Amino acid sequence: MPKISNRGIDMPASPIRKLTPFADQAKKDGKKIYHLNIGQPDIETPQVMLDALKNIDFKVWAYTASEGTASYRAKLASYYNKLNYNITPVDILVTNGGSEAITIAMQACLNPGEEIIIPEPFYANYNGFACAADIVVKPIMSYIDNGFALPAIADFEKLITSKTKAIAICNPNNPTGYLYSREELEALRELCLKHDLYLFSDEAYREFCYDGREFVSPMHLEGLEEHVVVLDTVSKRYSACGARIGCLITKNRELYQTALKFAQARLSPSLEGQIAGEAAVDTPDEYFQAVSKEYTARRDVLVNGLNKIDGVFCPNPGGAFYVVAKLPIDNADRFCQWMLEEFSHNGETVMMAPATGFYSTENAGQHEVRLAYVLKNEDLLAALICIEEGLKAYPGRTNTP
Amino acid sequence: MPKISNRGIDMPASPIRKLTPFADQAKKDGKKIYHLNIGQPDIETPQVMLDALKNIDFKVWAYTASEGTASYRAKLASYYNKLNYNITPVDILVTNGGSEAITIAMQACLNPGEEIIIPEPFYANYNGFACAADIVVKPIMSYIDNGFALPAIADFEKLITSKTKAIAICNPNNPTGYLYSREELEALRELCLKHDLYLFSDEAYREFCYDGREFVSPMHLEGLEEHVVVLDTVSKRYSACGARIGCLITKNRELYQTALKFAQARLSPSLEGQIAGEAAVDTPDEYFQAVSKEYTARRDVLVNGLNKIDGVFCPNPGGAFYVVAKLPIDNADRFCQWMLEEFSHNGETVMMAPATGFYSTENAGQHEVRLAYVLKNEDLLAALICIEEGLKAYPGRTNTP
Repeated sequence: MPKISNRGIDMPASPIRKLTPFADQAKKDGKKIYHLNIGQPDIETPQVMLDALKNIDFKVWAYTASEGTASYRAKLASYYNKLNYNITPVDILVTNGGSEAITIAMQACLNPGEEIIIPEPFYANYNGFACAADIVVKPIMSYIDNGFALPAIADFEKLITSKTKAIAICNPNNPTGYLYSREELEALRELCLKHDLYLFSDEAYREFCYDGREFVSPMHLEGLEEHVVVLDTVSKRYSACGARIGCLITKNRELYQTALKFAQARLSPSLEGQIAGEAAVDTPDEYFQAVSKEYTARRDVLVNGLNKIDGVFCPNPGGAFYVVAKLPIDNADRFCQWMLEEFSHNGETVMMAPATGFYSTENAGQHEVRLAYVLKNEDLLAALICIEEGLKAYPGRTNTP
Repeated sequence: MPKISNRGIDMPASPIRKLTPFADQAKKDGKKIYHLNIGQPDIETPQVMLDALKNIDFKVWAYTASEGTASYRAKLASYYNKLNYNITPVDILVTNGGSEAITIAMQACLNPGEEIIIPEPFYANYNGFACAADIVVKPIMSYIDNGFALPAIADFEKLITSKTKAIAICNPNNPTGYLYSREELEALRELCLKHDLYLFSDEAYREFCYDGREFVSPMHLEGLEEHVVVLDTVSKRYSACGARIGCLITKNRELYQTALKFAQARLSPSLEGQIAGEAAVDTPDEYFQAVSKEYTARRDVLVNGLNKIDGVFCPNPGGAFYVVAKLPIDNADRFCQWMLEEFSHNGETVMMAPATGFYSTENAGQHEVRLAYVLKNEDLLAALICIEEGLKAYPGRTNTP
C-alpha cells in the first residue's frame, strides 16, 4: 500500500470538531447540548442574498473569470471604498471562501520553510493552511490578562529572522474577540516596513465591532500598500458560511498577478455564490444594526454570566462573536470532554472548544476554553448554568483559575 | 517591497487563457470569434439542477460537514454504484470542484519533490496544482499517430524512480479525447501494484464516451483498492462548471482520513452546490442521450472537416469534447495568435489553444492545437472555413504537418 505524505501525517485534525464523537454519543444518550463550540451563527442570511439565489436566470451554469465576475468585483470595490479602503476592482481576487484566500496568500508570498508570525491563540485552521503550503507558523503569545491585546513589538522583534516573511492578524480576533486599536496597527505598520514583511489581515469579522468602537484595517495605513493582503469572506458578515465566497485584496500588483495564477489553476469561484454575494452588498443597514444589537446583548449575557461564576475570568471583547475564558480546571480538553461524557444538568450540557487547539505553543491554553455566542440569550443563560454546575462537579476542579 | 515566493514565480499562467488579450482586441476591432479554445460547454444545465437552486428553502446559509452533506454523499454513492464502483458514502469526499480534489490528492499522497507520472499532452492545470503542492510532474509522451493511446508500459518503467509516488490519467482524456481501453487500464493496474504507486483517475468526462464504447475506471479493477483515487466533478457531466462541486473517491481509509484533514481546514464545500448536485443525480437519461448525440455529431463535423483540410491530421477520439489536431504550421503559439491578430475571413476568426501548453516537454506540441467542440454545428462549420482559409494565408505555413 503506498504511503501517505508527511504533510498528510502532520496535517492537524480540526480541534473544533474533534469532540464531535462525544457530542454525538451524548445526544444518543438523550442529552440536550448547547453548541458554543463552533462559529456557525444562527442569524438569518439577508433576504436579498437568498432572493438572488432563488432568482437566478442562467441556463448554463458556467465558469466565471478566475478572478471573479467583473460586476461582483465592481460592487465589492464600492463596499470597501465606503470603508475608505481606496481600492479598485483590479485589486480584488474572488476566492472559494476566506480559506482559499489565506491559502493563496501563503502560497504566493512564502517559500517552503519560510515563517509567518501570528499572535496566539489564533484561528486553528491557519495551522492547516500553513501545513498544506509547507510553511512555518511562529506563534507569539498574547495574554488573557490584558484581553489578548497585541503582543509587544519587542516580542515580535525577537522572533524575526531571515526566514520571516509575513505577520498575520485576525481582526476582530477569532478566538479572542479582541479588536486591534489604531495604535497597535500603526506599530505593526512600522514593524512590517522596517523588516520588509507582508501583513496579512484576516477581516472575516469586520462588521462585528461593539460599543461604538472603530474598526481599523491595515488598508487604512499609508505607505503599506505593497505589504498588505486583506483576506475576507461573506461567511460571517452575511451569515452565509455555506456560500464559500471570499476574496483576497492587495494593491501589490506583482503579488496580485501571482495570486491570479493560483486562482487560474482552479478555474473560478462559484457563479451563483458571486451573484448572491453581489446582491448581499445591498443588504440594508438595518440588518447590520439588528445583528450588532443582538450580538452585543449576547456578549453581555455571556461575559457577565461567566465572570459571576466562582473562579472564572473572561475579558470583555470588542468584536467578533467569540470569547476565551479562563476556568478553574486542570485541563481544558479533559473538562470539555467530561462535560459531554459524564455531566448533565437537568438533561442538558454544553459543548465548548478547548483553547489548546488555538495555541501552537505546547501546553498553552490548558485552563481556557473558547465560547461562540451564536445562540440566543435564553440558551446562553441555560448554558451558563450548565457551566457553573459543571465546574462545581468536575473532579479536576482547581482552586484558582 | 517583500518578495513573492519562488513557487509563485514558477506557477504557470493558464495556457488556455493567455491569448485572451489578443481575442479581446480582435473583438474590439469588430471580428467575430469562434471560441474553440475553452471547455465551457454551451449545453444547458439540467432543469432539475437549476430548479433545486431556485427552490432552496434554508434561512441560514450554513456550513456543511467538511466531507459533504450526508444526503449528497449517499446519492452520489448510488450514482457510482450504478456504474459498479462498489463504494459507500464514506469513500466520498465532496470538494470545491474537481480542482480541489486533485490538489488534495496531491497534497495527501506526495511529499515535496516526489514525482507523479502523467501521459502528455495533459490538462495544463495539473502543472499548477503540482507547483502549488511543490511536487514534480514527470511527463510521458503519447503520440498523435496512434490517437494518443497509453504509452508503452516499458516507457513508464524507464521513468519510475524511488521518488515516483503516483501515476495520473485523465479518462476520457483532456486534451486528446482519447478513451483508455480495459487492456490499457489492466496494464496500469499491474504497474501500480508492482511499484506500489497511487493511480489518480480524473474522470471529469466519464459521461462523454461515443460510438457505444465502454468506459472503464480503475475502480473496476480488482486488487487496486488501496491505490486508486478517483477525481470527479459535476462541471462537465451536467454542464455545471460554475457550481464548483467535485469529489474525491478512495477506498483507502488512511488516505481518506488524511484527505479529510485537508478538507476540514477549508471548512466545507458550498451548501447550495451540494443541494443542486444531489438533485442532478436524478437527471433523466434522455438528457445524456441528447447530449451524447449532439457531441457525437459535433465531433464528426469537426474531425471530418479538419481531415479534409490540406495538410491537417486529426485522430477521431472516443470521448470528452476535445480533439488535438496536427496542422501544417511552424509554431502553434504563433499561428493561434496570428489567427486573432492578423487574420479574418468575412470578419470572422477562430480562437484555439496551442497544444504546447498541454505538454511539459520542451518544444513538444508545436505543430498541434486543441479544439473544444463546444459550439453548435453551424458554428463549427464556419470555424472550419476560417481554419482552412487561415492555413492558406498563414506566413508560417509548412508543406507537411
